[in-house]
Amino acid sequence: MPAAARPKTRKNPQPASPWAARRRLRAGHALKRDAVILAAARAFRARGYHNTSLDDLAASLEVTKPTLYLYVPSKEAILFECFRAGLAQIHSTLEECERAEGKARERLFAFIRGYAAAIVGDFGWCMLRAEDQHLGTAMSRRIKLLKAGIDRRMRALIDAGVTDGSIRACDTKMTAFALAGALNWMGHWYREDASLNPQEIADRFIDVFNRGLRGRD
Amino acid sequence: MPAAARPKTRKNPQPASPWAARRRLRAGHALKRDAVILAAARAFRARGYHNTSLDDLAASLEVTKPTLYLYVPSKEAILFECFRAGLAQIHSTLEECERAEGKARERLFAFIRGYAAAIVGDFGWCMLRAEDQHLGTAMSRRIKLLKAGIDRRMRALIDAGVTDGSIRACDTKMTAFALAGALNWMGHWYREDASLNPQEIADRFIDVFNRGLRGRD
Repeated sequence: MPAAARPKTRKNPQPASPWAARRRLRAGHALKRDAVILAAARAFRARGYHNTSLDDLAASLEVTKPTLYLYVPSKEAILFECFRAGLAQIHSTLEECERAEGKARERLFAFIRGYAAAIVGDFGWCMLRAEDQHLGTAMSRRIKLLKAGIDRRMRALIDAGVTDGSIRACDTKMTAFALAGALNWMGHWYREDASLNPQEIADRFIDVFNRGLRGRD
Repeated sequence: MPAAARPKTRKNPQPASPWAARRRLRAGHALKRDAVILAAARAFRARGYHNTSLDDLAASLEVTKPTLYLYVPSKEAILFECFRAGLAQIHSTLEECERAEGKARERLFAFIRGYAAAIVGDFGWCMLRAEDQHLGTAMSRRIKLLKAGIDRRMRALIDAGVTDGSIRACDTKMTAFALAGALNWMGHWYREDASLNPQEIADRFIDVFNRGLRGRD
């Protein structure tokens, strides 16, 4: 049994499984990989994808570039992982809203709040911009497909609202695009020192989309 | 009367003024410069700013790179000119809507139609993306200022609507951001083979923003 695999706190040590050691190694590897992806997401947002080199990234993490390659095969793959991390947030809020009780309009609005939080989060920039970085064809196609999945589920929420009467009949595709546009655009103008937090912004948007702008006349 | 001011159809030609020749040269130069800017706008949209070199651009115009430099001093300057060309379109529709008769809500909606047309036009991509290309500080500041000017005038239109009663009381800043987001996002998803043209899309957006989504309940 290799010494490295023995847990330090155990009272009556049993021969540890070599698989346990491998699991710990894997967990450590995954943590470091996550750190690489988070650092990259922040660098891409701050300086842009094309202006960030793997050398910059390695320097910011105080590792060598060959060390980086233990965790990620290429800069393009890192961007994809950043995109995927942002997408995971959106998926989890979508699932919650799809499963929730209540009228679909309220569930759509709950989704808007979750989406706004994800957009201004660490991976928001990469999620919005990955597609613009002129990646390889296969990568672009995967990103497009994953984005289309979100769009489809958002439209399904709006359709459900039209069905349950909580949303009036409308062009659900264009409504989804208008909503996604308003929210995604936050990634362009939102700064953390802004006077409103993402939830307050989402509430203002919900007010506009819920009641419309039409005045008394 | 200076020679240059004489109409060309005159029967007994006088010695042509060298200034007239210079004016013709200048007009020719401006036309060629416009062609450079238009070709660049299309190339940036198709391949991205960072993936388009001045060599590519020169090749697409069938001129040499030194010839390009007769018209534009740098790639950054070209991007700025593309941005400015898009902005000019937005400005002209804004001016029209500001001057028009009628309630501000209708004038805002007319502006939305003009804006949608500009976004999907040749310079829309550059107008939306110029700021993301990590340009020099001075250039970035100019672009930000010019964009802020559009935002300010859009908010003024919404404020005017609240004042004349055609738009209900709302957070006018967030309303302008939601509208701009919905419209700007068209630049990401709109393709010319789309089933709706920009005016039809604008009308769907106007419907959502005008009446809101709230159903019967």
